[in-house]
Amino acid sequence: MNTHPARGMRDFLPEDVRRRQYVIGVIADVYQRYGFEPLETPAVENIETLLGKYGEEGDKLIFKILKRGEGAEAGEADLALRYDLTVPLARVVAEHRARLPKFFKRYQVQPVWRADRPQKGRFREFFQCDVDAIGSRSMLIEAELLGAAGDVLARLGFADYTLRLNHRGVLAGLLEASGVPEGLQADALTSLDKLDKIGADGVEADLRSRGVPEEGARLLLELFGAVTAARAQATVSPEAVNEDVMARLERLVGHSRPDAVAELRQILTLVAPSAAGRHVRLDPSLARGLSYYTGAIFEIAVPDLAGSLGGGGRYDHLIGMFLGEEVAACGISLGLERILVVMAERHMFPENLGRAAADVMVTVWHPDVVADALRLAAELRSAGLRVEVYPEADKIGRQFKYAASRAIPFVTVVGEDESAKGVVTVKTLDTGEQRIVPRADVASAIVTGRST
Amino acid sequence: MNTHPARGMRDFLPEDVRRRQYVIGVIADVYQRYGFEPLETPAVENIETLLGKYGEEGDKLIFKILKRGEGAEAGEADLALRYDLTVPLARVVAEHRARLPKFFKRYQVQPVWRADRPQKGRFREFFQCDVDAIGSRSMLIEAELLGAAGDVLARLGFADYTLRLNHRGVLAGLLEASGVPEGLQADALTSLDKLDKIGADGVEADLRSRGVPEEGARLLLELFGAVTAARAQATVSPEAVNEDVMARLERLVGHSRPDAVAELRQILTLVAPSAAGRHVRLDPSLARGLSYYTGAIFEIAVPDLAGSLGGGGRYDHLIGMFLGEEVAACGISLGLERILVVMAERHMFPENLGRAAADVMVTVWHPDVVADALRLAAELRSAGLRVEVYPEADKIGRQFKYAASRAIPFVTVVGEDESAKGVVTVKTLDTGEQRIVPRADVASAIVTGRST
Repeated sequence: MNTHPARGMRDFLPEDVRRRQYVIGVIADVYQRYGFEPLETPAVENIETLLGKYGEEGDKLIFKILKRGEGAEAGEADLALRYDLTVPLARVVAEHRARLPKFFKRYQVQPVWRADRPQKGRFREFFQCDVDAIGSRSMLIEAELLGAAGDVLARLGFADYTLRLNHRGVLAGLLEASGVPEGLQADALTSLDKLDKIGADGVEADLRSRGVPEEGARLLLELFGAVTAARAQATVSPEAVNEDVMARLERLVGHSRPDAVAELRQILTLVAPSAAGRHVRLDPSLARGLSYYTGAIFEIAVPDLAGSLGGGGRYDHLIGMFLGEEVAACGISLGLERILVVMAERHMFPENLGRAAADVMVTVWHPDVVADALRLAAELRSAGLRVEVYPEADKIGRQFKYAASRAIPFVTVVGEDESAKGVVTVKTLDTGEQRIVPRADVASAIVTGRST
Repeated sequence: MNTHPARGMRDFLPEDVRRRQYVIGVIADVYQRYGFEPLETPAVENIETLLGKYGEEGDKLIFKILKRGEGAEAGEADLALRYDLTVPLARVVAEHRARLPKFFKRYQVQPVWRADRPQKGRFREFFQCDVDAIGSRSMLIEAELLGAAGDVLARLGFADYTLRLNHRGVLAGLLEASGVPEGLQADALTSLDKLDKIGADGVEADLRSRGVPEEGARLLLELFGAVTAARAQATVSPEAVNEDVMARLERLVGHSRPDAVAELRQILTLVAPSAAGRHVRLDPSLARGLSYYTGAIFEIAVPDLAGSLGGGGRYDHLIGMFLGEEVAACGISLGLERILVVMAERHMFPENLGRAAADVMVTVWHPDVVADALRLAAELRSAGLRVEVYPEADKIGRQFKYAASRAIPFVTVVGEDESAKGVVTVKTLDTGEQRIVPRADVASAIVTGRST
C-alpha cells in the first residue's frame, strides 16, 4: 500500500511542527500587540466564491471538490479548497459586517491549496500568514503593517531583509508619463514584475513584444536603472536613496498623481522611526502581479532567497465585489514556508526548540512498580514538567538508552532500596551523574539540573 | 453574491477563535506533560488511502477532489479530504517508521471533513484532538491516556464527567457466553451500541430482528440492567460498582477470555490513583461503533450532552493495513466542537479571554500627531502591551466611544499641553478616571490600572 503523502503535500513530524509553531507563535504575538485579532475561515468554500478572483491561471489551480448525490456521476464540482486568505476575508467582511468593528484588523494563519506543479520549495498545501486592516484609507495602516512585519522579522532574527515599497497609482502615473497607452498598462505591469528575474533587457524585449512604445519602455527602464545604480553605491544611505527616488517621482508624476505621490511620502515618513524604517526601499519597479491592488504595494526580500518572504498592499475594491459597496482594505501576507526554509538554512531556530519530547523519563524495572511509576510521573507533571513513562517493564540499561536516543536529559529510578527509603535516583544522561533525591524534591532537582 | 460559508462550514470570528485556541492550548499543554509530541498531516490524502477504512457509510461521506488534467472531464477523483486523524496516523507510522521512536506518542489537533447532512451541532468541517501511543501493548498506555484526558477535563473545569470503560475481548466473551454465534457478533455490537439511545427493549427487539437467540439477548441485557441498577444506587460508590462489575465479568468470561479480563482489571488499578480515577465507570455495554478496536475501549460522557465528549481504544491491527506488519496502538480522541458547546452553555470560559483586541488605544486628534502616536504605540508594545492606534484623526469623543465599543479598557491622549510637558493622559474608560502620567511611565500605569 502506498504510504506517501499525496503529491506536493507534506507530513510534519514533531520537530517540523515545533518549528512551525514557534514561527506562528511569534507572528501571532506581534500582530496581537498591534491590535490584530485572529480569524479562521473554512478550508472549503463554495466554488463560485473563488472562481474569477485569481485570474485565468489561478482558476486552473483551484482544487475542486466533487458534488455529492446526483452531481457526482456528472463530475460536477460545487465546492473548492481555499486558494488564499484574502478572498475568504472579503467574503467574511461582507457576510458578518454588522458583527465586525468599523476598523476590522485581523490576522489569519491557515493553509491554502493550489494544484500547482510541485517543485523544490513549492507545495500544493502551504500556510499563509495574512494580516489585514479593513475600513480605513489612512496611511497609518500601511505604516503599522510594515512596522508589524518588521517586528516579526526582527523577533525571528532577520537583520538583512528589505521592504520594497511602491504605489500602484504612482506606477500608473509613470506608465502614463512614459506614453504607455492605458490598454497596455496591465501588460506592462506583468512585464515589469519580471525585472528581478529576466533583467532590464528581458523586460524591454517583453514590453516591446506586447506593443509598448520603444520610447516609453526606455524611459521606464532608465528610471529603474538609475534607482538600482543609486542603491548599489555603498556610500549612499538607503534613506538618502529613498529621498532621491521620492524626488524623482514627485517630478515625474507629482502633477498627474498628486494623491498617490503624497501617500507614498506619508508612508515613508511614518514608517521611518519604526524597527522596519531602515529596511524600507522605495522601488518604482515593484509591480506585484495581482490585479486587485489599488494603492501602496510592498514586498519583503532577503538576499539569499529568490522570490519574496511576503508581500501585500492596498486593495480598496475587492470587498466591494462581495458587498456591493466599497470598503477600504490593506494587508500583508508572510510566506511561512519560505521563512522556515531560510531559517533552517541559516540555523536561526532557538536551541531549546530541541527534539526532546520530555524533560525526564520515569523508568519501570518491574511490572509491580508500574503503579508507583505513574504516581511519580503525576507528581512531576503537576510541577509543570513534561514526563515520559517508559511503557513497559524492561532492562534498565535499555531504558536509559531509549531516553538518550530521544534526547531526554534526565531519567528517574526507584528501585527497592529507593522505595524503602522514600528517595529517587535522578540520573543526568549526558554526564552520567546520579543523585539520590528525597521524593518530594525530584521536580526541583530536575528543574535546577536543567538550568545548570 | 452569496457570502455565506459553504453548507455545514463555519467562519470563526475573533471571539470564537480565542475560545478554540484556549481549549486547544490546554489540550496541547497537558499532552506535552505526558510526553506526547505534535504531528500534522495534510488535509488532502490520496483517495485510496482513505477508501475502505471507514466502512461503506464512511466511504460515502468522504469529500472527493476532482482530478486535474484529462481526468477532470470524466469526473474522476484522485484525492480526498481527511476524514479522521487515525488513518493518516497509521499511514505516517508506516511511511516514516525509521525516523520515529520505538514508542511514538503523538497528539494531533486538526480539522476533518465529512459530507454529512448538517444539523444542530454537527458540521461538515470540525476539529478532532487525537492522542495516540504507538508501539506498546502495555496497559500503562491505557492508564496514561485516561489520566491525560482526565487532566484536560479537570483543567477546563469539568467536574462531572464519566469515563466509560470496556474491552472488546471481554465483550466478545460475553457475546459468546450468551450464545451469540460468531457471525452475528458484529451485528450484536452495532445493536448494543444503541443502548443509550433506544433503551433495553429497543436493543432486545433489534437483536432479535438480527437473529440473535432470545436467550442470549436476555442474558446480555440482564447483565447490563444489573449494572445500570447498581449505578443508580446513590449509597454505592462508583468504585464499589466497578469492583462488582469486574467480579461478574471474571465469573462470566474469566475462563474464556482471561487476558482481556486481566487487562481490564489492570487498567482499573493503574488509573485509580489518577485525577481520572474516580470518574471511571466499568461499563460492559459500551461497544463503540468502529470495527478496528481490538482491546480496551473508552468513551467520555457528561450528563448534559447526548453523545460523547470523546472516546477511543486500542487498535492493534490498523497500522498493519499500511505497514504489512502489526504495530500496537491505542488512542483517544476529544471532540473539540462538543467540548466548546458544553463550555459555552455552562459559561466555563475564563473571563480574561474577553473580547478586547487590545489593552489600550492610542488616540489621534490631528493628522500632525500621527507619527507621535505611532511612537507612543511602539513604546507601549515593547513593554508587552497590545496596542491599537485609532487609524484616523477624528473627534476625540468618537474615538473614546469606539474604544469602549471594542471593550478596550484604556485610551491615551497626547494633546498640545501633554506634548509640551512630556506627559500622557491615560483614561480608564469604564470609570472615566483620567491620570496625567510621565511618558516613560504610561505602560506601567496601564499594567497597574489593569490589575486593580
